Amino acid sequence: MKKLINKNENIIEEMVDGFIEAYGDHYKKLDEDFKGVVLKEKKDKVAVVVGGGTGHEPLFIGFVGEGLADGAAIGNVFAAPTPGTVLNVTRAVDSGKGVLYIYGNYSGDILNFDMAAELAEMEDLNTETVLVRDDVASAPIERIEDRRGISGDVFVIKVAGAAADLGLSLEEVTKAAQKASDQTRSIGVALSSGTIPGLEKPTFSLPEDEIEFGMGIHGEPGIQRTNMMTADELTDKMLETLLADFNLNEGDEVCMLVNGLGSTSLLELMIVNRRASQVLKEKGISIYHTDVNSYCTSQEMAGVSISLMRLDDELKTFYNHPAHSPYYTKK
Amino acid sequence: MKKLINKNENIIEEMVDGFIEAYGDHYKKLDEDFKGVVLKEKKDKVAVVVGGGTGHEPLFIGFVGEGLADGAAIGNVFAAPTPGTVLNVTRAVDSGKGVLYIYGNYSGDILNFDMAAELAEMEDLNTETVLVRDDVASAPIERIEDRRGISGDVFVIKVAGAAADLGLSLEEVTKAAQKASDQTRSIGVALSSGTIPGLEKPTFSLPEDEIEFGMGIHGEPGIQRTNMMTADELTDKMLETLLADFNLNEGDEVCMLVNGLGSTSLLELMIVNRRASQVLKEKGISIYHTDVNSYCTSQEMAGVSISLMRLDDELKTFYNHPAHSPYYTKK
Repeated sequence: MKKLINKNENIIEEMVDGFIEAYGDHYKKLDEDFKGVVLKEKKDKVAVVVGGGTGHEPLFIGFVGEGLADGAAIGNVFAAPTPGTVLNVTRAVDSGKGVLYIYGNYSGDILNFDMAAELAEMEDLNTETVLVRDDVASAPIERIEDRRGISGDVFVIKVAGAAADLGLSLEEVTKAAQKASDQTRSIGVALSSGTIPGLEKPTFSLPEDEIEFGMGIHGEPGIQRTNMMTADELTDKMLETLLADFNLNEGDEVCMLVNGLGSTSLLELMIVNRRASQVLKEKGISIYHTDVNSYCTSQEMAGVSISLMRLDDELKTFYNHPAHSPYYTKK
Repeated sequence: MKKLINKNENIIEEMVDGFIEAYGDHYKKLDEDFKGVVLKEKKDKVAVVVGGGTGHEPLFIGFVGEGLADGAAIGNVFAAPTPGTVLNVTRAVDSGKGVLYIYGNYSGDILNFDMAAELAEMEDLNTETVLVRDDVASAPIERIEDRRGISGDVFVIKVAGAAADLGLSLEEVTKAAQKASDQTRSIGVALSSGTIPGLEKPTFSLPEDEIEFGMGIHGEPGIQRTNMMTADELTDKMLETLLADFNLNEGDEVCMLVNGLGSTSLLELMIVNRRASQVLKEKGISIYHTDVNSYCTSQEMAGVSISLMRLDDELKTFYNHPAHSPYYTKK
């Protein structure tokens, strides 16, 4: 697989440099740590810090913005940020009102963010944590605490960013983000693998006529290897799985993200959205807002995930709050 | 190549339906023609209509928006919209102040947009046309009128949309768009092919260690098949070609788009942007604004194009004007 990189060991630094070259009016990397990207101007509010491995762009650095996160701590490709990077970002964004960490439920991330939180505490910096556990395929509902975070990250960051922007306390922002996380479920399907830059070979391989239902964004095994099907058949199966897990009822309101995993075209994502919208409407579930985009990717993996967040009035207020980054805008 | 579609013959209609399901608060498809997508509310100003084949999403429908185009006329995958569709869109968006067509310089598009313009004239609808011819690889400078349009479309649409939004006349909007087109040059490189939905095979094939320099967004032959190189080497070669063609001088100001062709990750595009920014700065060319995104794609083609628009005060005013669609925001 051909990748537009230079030396393997420099890809993260060069990516961040490229991001800052493009968007440096609003962002900076930390002097002491290029794996920390923050808003140029510190705001007098609770700060939101997101993070995880590189390779899922625009997540995570592309979700630092107005009404979104204040900073991102990133690691190597598909690897957690170090505690040092998380701590550096925490120091850079804290205005004295505390910092909320939001990241996917992966053991490496938990270990390192938790260690950063302990180190931060020693410096009298208050932190809280909300884990994203939206991937219904990653563990059965009895072990919901084991579920991984995938594209549902977007909704949790959106809600937390709005709550912080509206001047809420750390406790309140945490509560809002936790609610968003609890109310968000996703399911993903891989059609083909991506490749980690610098590695010759794809992360996994799938025969031309097969797909992996429930595969994770780092190539974690899904729940079923199955034949390729039409867009409508696949969408039906995805929503069936989501709805069986997520006790959505007639009259419920959701927002939906139809998320491409990398190389799946918008044309295809739109076709999936058409069917997903039909199915939800047939079930009497009201779609408050939809986004069709590739926000949480796995390099050039082909495939799609669908995320739903069940809304109440509070989440709706946060969801509606304006937000802007180079890769995500809510007007 | 696995594609998330249903029946081949329905992909355009289903894509448009999916787009309207997602963004129907602001957009509608025409009752009489699903290949026409327009803003829901007609505005009392010159209208801008863009178009071309499907398969390059988010171009073209994703560039209908506030301060952008008022409507898009699309064809089948990689095929021009019919004169009927262009005419339908023209009727739908015209407020009496005239309509500017902007599209890439391809013979099928010219034939059909021109025919639509003639039909429109018979209905007393005024139209003007600006062709986008930014691809420096598609013909030598002596035959600049033969050059194809690629990602430079974005700048021309941005400028025209702003000029129209600011209340300028059809003549003035056309002049602004023509200036943007004249001041925009691009160069693209393909690393691997995309696949037209419904076709089993990629449009072309490239050995694992080769790339095609100057390849077009429908797989048109480039100017050189060459070995794969590092991101910096490739970026240097791209800018060398661009700058040799485009008489940019020290002190000139440009805006830059580093555009992914489909499956090239943002990580890679950022690395390309880092180098492109370095090179321009070294030459004393000032970068007014940069965007790194996949706006003009060719399904899951891997590769990148770089577009530069040379700015003057007038173009800068238009470039700075706010714009918004689900896929493009300028604040």
